[in-house]
Amino acid sequence: MKIVRFQDRADEINYGLHQEDDTVALLHGNPYANIEVGPIVGNIQDIDLCSPVTPSKIIAVGLNYKLHAEEVGMALPEFPMFFYKPPTSVIGPKETIILPETSDHVEHECELAVVMGERCSKVSVDTALKYIFGYTCGNDISARDWQKRETQWVRGKGFDTFLPLGPCIQTNLDPTQVQLSTRVNGEVKQSSSTSDLIFPVDQLISELSAIMTLLPGDIIVTGTPSGVGPIHHGDLVEVEVEGIGTLQNPVASA
Amino acid sequence: MKIVRFQDRADEINYGLHQEDDTVALLHGNPYANIEVGPIVGNIQDIDLCSPVTPSKIIAVGLNYKLHAEEVGMALPEFPMFFYKPPTSVIGPKETIILPETSDHVEHECELAVVMGERCSKVSVDTALKYIFGYTCGNDISARDWQKRETQWVRGKGFDTFLPLGPCIQTNLDPTQVQLSTRVNGEVKQSSSTSDLIFPVDQLISELSAIMTLLPGDIIVTGTPSGVGPIHHGDLVEVEVEGIGTLQNPVASA
Repeated sequence: MKIVRFQDRADEINYGLHQEDDTVALLHGNPYANIEVGPIVGNIQDIDLCSPVTPSKIIAVGLNYKLHAEEVGMALPEFPMFFYKPPTSVIGPKETIILPETSDHVEHECELAVVMGERCSKVSVDTALKYIFGYTCGNDISARDWQKRETQWVRGKGFDTFLPLGPCIQTNLDPTQVQLSTRVNGEVKQSSSTSDLIFPVDQLISELSAIMTLLPGDIIVTGTPSGVGPIHHGDLVEVEVEGIGTLQNPVASA
Repeated sequence: MKIVRFQDRADEINYGLHQEDDTVALLHGNPYANIEVGPIVGNIQDIDLCSPVTPSKIIAVGLNYKLHAEEVGMALPEFPMFFYKPPTSVIGPKETIILPETSDHVEHECELAVVMGERCSKVSVDTALKYIFGYTCGNDISARDWQKRETQWVRGKGFDTFLPLGPCIQTNLDPTQVQLSTRVNGEVKQSSSTSDLIFPVDQLISELSAIMTLLPGDIIVTGTPSGVGPIHHGDLVEVEVEGIGTLQNPVASA
């Protein structure tokens, strides 16, 4: 099931079901509890999509692909290196990534983003996947110059618009070996598979839930593969994750 | 005005006004928009207080008191060292701080916590204070062993129960010189004034709002003075901020 969030002509935000024939049906109710399929509201390309989720918290993982760890010259971590992105960094499909005035070096990072479905705490690796609602594409935009100047990456990872998410939440996906990639202006920059993850999704949830309670809609962005690189004013960045779709965002200076 | 949040006998959460005679009046409406004072619901000591705020994000500041920076052997920072605490770390007055099984060294940190009142972005130092709703007491509980092992302080600062807030939001306070202190089992451990802040409140808001949009209810915990120290199972920790009140929390092992 592909679940989208969209803004209708009355500026109201609704959930929708992206169906096989590319129509979108209105969803009544809360997708994290129970939903009922309503009338068709239009074709997917005519729908004004928003970020498919409004997380209460977003936890990202540094250095979680073997090749990327080599690329940035870091030793493989002994436990997942979690960090946060703020909810105000989230934008949806086609919304603009704004390059901050105070940074000269902003980069893309394609990621598989996990959307939690159930409140959970201290879950085992074996049961972790059942607390997941679904998956979406994430682009963990990063200001590298700030990341190097700060001990804690609040500027480096936290500017407004620094987390495009979308286009949908795919509720039916095996996270252990999906292809993911980034294209900038059509050119492939990153391309890998989650089979290269150092800490796979079930282990991330288990380790994270040992620290903090996870809530429905919370996001875990699971790390980026090798090939990160700069983005500039006028670029179009696309993150594609197999089975989910493509997340497109233009880039502009502040 | 002292605004509290409390749970009534029907388990509903309401806002209340803590009045001079220590009665609490029910508040109708949203304190961040408009409120109307309703009937008295009881005396403050009989009210089951919750955290006075449910933030969408919490930004803390490291090394923001001169003496504390010396205490931990760090040079004075050239810009505020922001980090996050997750919303799931928030607890209210009298709720128990749980010491995680995976840490052997948990410490108290008394802080003046700013509660934002208005959505704002890129505000100047001169206008920053007008976006504030009020102030509360915060205790930035920290697992020092994890802080040393991690590059990003997700475990060190982010376990459930690691941010007691309360007892009220004081909307009428000059943040430039308030006394704050921590007592553990009645013994004073920290005692200072916000006049010793390296980056005062107006500058923190200006710098932070240059990174990210701040929303009503967002929390900025402004840093802790010297005297931080360990807490143990069975302790009672009290954070007092002049003009706001005292935030009491027992401590227990997981």
